[in-house]
Formats: sequence, C-alpha cells, structure tokens
Amino acid sequence: MKIITGGVTAAKGFEAAGVEAGIKYKDRKDMAMIYSRTPCVLAGTFTSNVVKAAPVLWDKKVVEESPFGQAVIVNAGIANAGTGREGYSYCERTAAAAAAELGIPESAVLVASTGVIGMQLPIDRIEAGVRELARARKDTLEAGTLAAQAIMTTDTCSKQAAVQIQVGGASVTLGGMCKGSGMIHPNMCTMLGFLTTDAVISKELLTKALREDVADTFNMVSVDGDTSTNDTLLILANGMAENPEILEGTAEYAAFKEALHYVNETLAKMMAGDGEGATALFEVKVIGAAAKQDARLLCKSVVGSSLCKAAIYGHDANWGRFLCALGYSGVSFDPENMELYFESRAGKLLIYKDGASADYSEEEAAEIISQPEVTVIADMKMGTHSATAWGCDLTYDYVKINADYRS
Amino acid sequence: MKIITGGVTAAKGFEAAGVEAGIKYKDRKDMAMIYSRTPCVLAGTFTSNVVKAAPVLWDKKVVEESPFGQAVIVNAGIANAGTGREGYSYCERTAAAAAAELGIPESAVLVASTGVIGMQLPIDRIEAGVRELARARKDTLEAGTLAAQAIMTTDTCSKQAAVQIQVGGASVTLGGMCKGSGMIHPNMCTMLGFLTTDAVISKELLTKALREDVADTFNMVSVDGDTSTNDTLLILANGMAENPEILEGTAEYAAFKEALHYVNETLAKMMAGDGEGATALFEVKVIGAAAKQDARLLCKSVVGSSLCKAAIYGHDANWGRFLCALGYSGVSFDPENMELYFESRAGKLLIYKDGASADYSEEEAAEIISQPEVTVIADMKMGTHSATAWGCDLTYDYVKINADYRS
Repeated sequence: MKIITGGVTAAKGFEAAGVEAGIKYKDRKDMAMIYSRTPCVLAGTFTSNVVKAAPVLWDKKVVEESPFGQAVIVNAGIANAGTGREGYSYCERTAAAAAAELGIPESAVLVASTGVIGMQLPIDRIEAGVRELARARKDTLEAGTLAAQAIMTTDTCSKQAAVQIQVGGASVTLGGMCKGSGMIHPNMCTMLGFLTTDAVISKELLTKALREDVADTFNMVSVDGDTSTNDTLLILANGMAENPEILEGTAEYAAFKEALHYVNETLAKMMAGDGEGATALFEVKVIGAAAKQDARLLCKSVVGSSLCKAAIYGHDANWGRFLCALGYSGVSFDPENMELYFESRAGKLLIYKDGASADYSEEEAAEIISQPEVTVIADMKMGTHSATAWGCDLTYDYVKINADYRS
Repeated sequence: MKIITGGVTAAKGFEAAGVEAGIKYKDRKDMAMIYSRTPCVLAGTFTSNVVKAAPVLWDKKVVEESPFGQAVIVNAGIANAGTGREGYSYCERTAAAAAAELGIPESAVLVASTGVIGMQLPIDRIEAGVRELARARKDTLEAGTLAAQAIMTTDTCSKQAAVQIQVGGASVTLGGMCKGSGMIHPNMCTMLGFLTTDAVISKELLTKALREDVADTFNMVSVDGDTSTNDTLLILANGMAENPEILEGTAEYAAFKEALHYVNETLAKMMAGDGEGATALFEVKVIGAAAKQDARLLCKSVVGSSLCKAAIYGHDANWGRFLCALGYSGVSFDPENMELYFESRAGKLLIYKDGASADYSEEEAAEIISQPEVTVIADMKMGTHSATAWGCDLTYDYVKINADYRS
C-alpha cells in the first residue's frame, strides 16, 4: 500500500469542484461536487438517529434502489434536517438540476448537507450552485482540495487522504474527504465522508468492506456525544482501474480493506483532532479486553467523558477520571487487576495498577499529557481484544462555538 | 404535607456537625457528621460504576448486613476511590474512631467521601476530625446547615430540604441534604445525599420507597454525563416520631412517598441548577411517550447533550439540537408527528410541529430561553407516559473548573 497525495480526485475518472454559492456563509466556498466519468458501484452508511435529514433519506433510497451512482452534490451551512416535505423536495430538485447539467439520471445523483438544523435551503441558490459546479469540475488534485474546503463548517482545516494498491497488475486508487467538527458522535457512520475508488468490485463486497471498517474507524470518533441527523459516508467505485474484480477471501480483498482502513482511519483521526475548539487529539486504546465489543464500549466511554476531555485540556494527569469513565461504560472488569498508561511523543508512563496509583512522577505525567496528541491506554488483563477511539479535549472554545453557532 | 425549614436535623433525635479538618481544602469546613440518638433502620442506593470507591463498598456492607445504623461521617476534598486496600482500611479506621467517640458499634457507622480520585486520605486528620465532630454535634437546624456546607466541593451553595406529614396522629418529619456539582450523572443514586426521618417504618418498605423514588428524581439528573465512583444516597429512620408503623398500600405510605419525593426532587433540582459552572437550570419534560422508560431515555438524552446545554448557555433557541438529541436517544418515534415547546417564567412557545419549524417569533423564543430556569417540552404523541430530567447549561466555567480541578 502506497500513501499518496490527494482526496476524492486521486482515483481515475473522478472530477470535483468547490464554489461559492452563498447558501448561508459569505465569501467562502460552500458547495461541492464529486462526479465520475463512468457509472459507479455505490455503498453508504448513514446516521442511526431517528431524526434523519432529508438528504439522508434521499441517499438511502439511491444507494438501495439505483443501479448506479455518478455524482454527489454537497452544501455547507444548512443541514436540511427538520425540514419536512419541503426539505425533501429540495433534494429532488438538487438531483434534477445536477442530472440535467451532467446528462445523467436523477437517480444517480447523491446529495448531502451540513449546518444548521431546521432552516430551509435557498433552492434557487442551490440550483445556481449546481450549474456553476458542473462548469468548474476538474479531475485535478486541486479540484479535490477545493471540494474538501467547500464542505467545511466549523472545521479549521480540510480533510483528505488517498492510497494506492496493486490488484492483479493494475494500480487501484482509493481517496476520500470528510468534514466533522461538532455534533460528532457517529453511529453507523460520520458526519459527512466521501470516498472514491477506481477499483472493480461488486456492490455487495463494497458494502461489506465499508460497514466492517466503519465500526473501527468513524464509529470510534466522538467530539461531543451528539449523533447528528446528517451522518453520511458514501463510497463510489467506478471500475476505471480495470483490475480483475476484487473477490472476497482473496489477498486482493485484504489489500483493498487495508487501503480502505487507512483512508477511513486517517480521515477519522483528522476529524477528531479538529473537533470544535480542540487543542489536542485524544486517543484511547483498550487492550486485553474479553471481547471486541467490550473494548469498543470502554474506549468510547472514556473518549466521550467531559471530565476526561477537560483534564486533557488542563494538562492534568487526573487518572481517576479515566478510571471512572471505564467504570461506567457498562463493561464489567476488576479495577484491582488492570493498568492505565499515558502515552505521547514525550514518552509512556504507567499511572495506575493493583487498584491504586502507580509510583509515577507527576511532572513526567504532565509533560506527556501536554502534547498535541495524547493516548490513554487501558490494559484490562481479561483477554486479547483491543480497540481504539479518537476524540479531542473540551475547551472554552467548544462552548463559545456552540453557544454562538446560529448567530 | 408541609414544607418546613431544615435538613438532616429537622427530624426528631438527629444531630449533626460540620468542622474544618484540613483534609485537602484550607479555611473551610470539610467534614460532616450525622448522628441519631437511637438506632436507625437503614436503606441506601449506590453508584452503578464498576469502579466503586472504598466508602461505597463499606456502606453497602453496612446497609446489607448491619442490624441498624446510627451515624454517618463524610469528608470533602478526597474521594477515597482508586485507593485499593489502603483506602478501604481508612473506612474501617474512620468507623472505629466514630464508634469509640459515640459509644456505638462500628457496624452502625456509615462513611462517605467526595473529591479527587486516587489520593489517599490523611487518616490522622480524619480521626481528629471525627473527634471534633462528635464534640460539636447538635440537634439544631444550624448544625444541619453546617453539615450541608461541609460536604460541598465545587458546589456554590449548600442543599437542604425538609417536610412534615401526619401519620396516625403523629407528626413525621423527613429531611435531607446533598452535594453535587461535577461528575454528576447518577445511576442508581446521586453523588452524595443523606436523608433522615423519625418515621417508624420497616427496612424493606424504606428500601422499596427509596429505590422507586430515586428512579424519578436523582437518577434523572445529569450535569456532565459522568457517573461517579462515589454516588451514595442514604436514608436513616430512627422511629422517634412514634407513629403507628407505616405499612405498604396505605394512605400513610402514600403520604410518606410524597414526602420522600418532595425532598428528593427538591435536592435533585438544586443539584442540577448548581452544576459546575452553570448559569441556568435546564429541565426537560417528555409527555405522550409510549412507555415510562421511553420517556426517561428521551429526557436524559436531551438533558445530557453538550450541544443542547451550550444552546441554553448561548440563549439560542436552536431547536434542531433538541430534536437531534431526542433522535439518538435509542427510542423510536415519528419526527413528523410530535411537538417541541420552550417554556420558562417568560412564557411558553410551540417551536416545532409536523416535521418542521412552527411559525414562532425568534425574539420571543430567545426571551424564554434566557431565563435562569428553562424547560424544553417534547410531546411525542404516542401514549400517556411522561418523565422529567434536570441538568444545567454548559459554560466556559464548567471547562475552567474541570481543566483546573486538581491544581
């Protein structure tokens, strides 16, 4: 597997664009398009929230019923959630506008929105944006970057990743972009993520690979515990790499899953580290758990704890909070027989063992926990299962951003 | 039922004290005692956290095995959690010291601690504090207030409540105190709460009444989603009212439960409104739910949402976040057929219905949500069950308090 530069335009035959459509923001790009020159096999995972945004309802239908997909239209600023039938009709009109511009069926157009809930989209500006996107689209890496910038809301940086693998003599590329920042506690998938690949692979296998990997990547991220109404992760495979079809149980499928995992994990970590107001990426690793699901629950409990997140922000090695959050995860364990470590580029330190504080240096612990990427490791000593979750610290700026968001 | 002034010393035969023992704080009271002149029937509920503080383990044993209880010793500053066998031995020594001073069995002494996890108690100062408490104890309302002040950590005010009911011609009093503020997301009970009553009632019925009521009071409070290692709610009934024994299924039991509910709900709301850094009490009412448990889950999801809490702090009627939090509660409902209201002393406003924004005035909504007590009401239109939860807004000060807590 080779890590390469780029995002959604890294794979063959994919074009992208980002434009200023004036949806809600001023003087910044706020609409993006991904387009494939040929029809794509589609897979997607969506929010588990009972309240699903209109574009989620539309995309679920496209992924489940359409024979193929070929374009994605995204807007930032307004989420098109809590907007009833009017909101859904705007998804239809967006797809119709894109279909007309691109000469593809409406049923091949996916849509995604992110931003404020409850406000209706200015559909005229959306339609004008679609026309401009269709004109501006290009297959360059720069075009992919413009698209990645256009989907940002409170993100402070755009998020892209891409890799290449060899499949039966053909070079297969997989790239993606995502946006995150707030209302991030994905359940079945993330806020908005878009992956493109030129691999030849069936819809069934693509769906399986995506679902399995999301459980260990995007679904292990929490910025604030709020599972959005709009969470959407889509993958489009256009087959232009002309590799022999990737089949289940082969070395090629393993390589494809490794590539998918790299891109998803990279994007998920970028999203966590750029959580609203964050000053640090907060990683939690659980090892030695009795079951995989236990390891996941333990990780997510710690990474989602306001008190643990505030301790990271305060550079305070207050390990009791981490132990406490493991304790209310719902997973049973023996607090007298497990160990806690803090780790970062400044070193690794045993903090807790045998039911009480280990004999560690507070100074050294503070140094470790003051780095921009901090890992807390819990060794449960009950088995061989492990999991990792990613979040960020809880800061004044998180509160500021979210107390002011609509104004 | 008559609401009266006072707390743990309101009922007959109970004495209390609060003293400066220098456990961790300087120049403030940090140890409290509750003492009953006669042996008490005991009941308690404790944290569901797998990591249980040493005093929780001690108290569970006393509540389950001792024939009666007669005193409670509380310290603030150090939680005596994550302290292993050494920590548990300090519970034994605290009980032994109190037993010697008060002339009661060690097995009749309950202990409770709140504060930093992982630090050992300075047992010499604890033992000296016990001696001072025993000398200082009084049956006055002022003594109850001193005790309520001594158990505070980041609380900004002490929390007491008391009521009187008539049982078979006898006047029965029930009073209590609690402390809260941070790491508050009780599960089976709250951080630290102590109730005293002079009622004649069996241990079985007292336990039943307490368990049932906690589900609708303390367990419906969330300050930050962190279920503490130390959550403890104790009730001591010394029988000095000399009422005919309260029996299940009688009008007297109903009156006693009403009294218990009033004291618990009052203390729970005080705790929520005084959450760390809070500027507002945030109440969530769910009505029209299909089942009681659904109503509880829906309430707790909203009251625990960082984004909803930040919206309250920002005086921003951003109803999409409230809808979103209902949606990820795990309870199924139809977002197209339910209603959301905001309510406070400034009025009541329909905000959302039929799947989209209601036609309301943003100015009026902002006025309602800017009050010191704000209620969000969700009418699920699915049945007749309801529940209420209490929390507080998420503020800069919450982050400040928790980023700095140990230093």
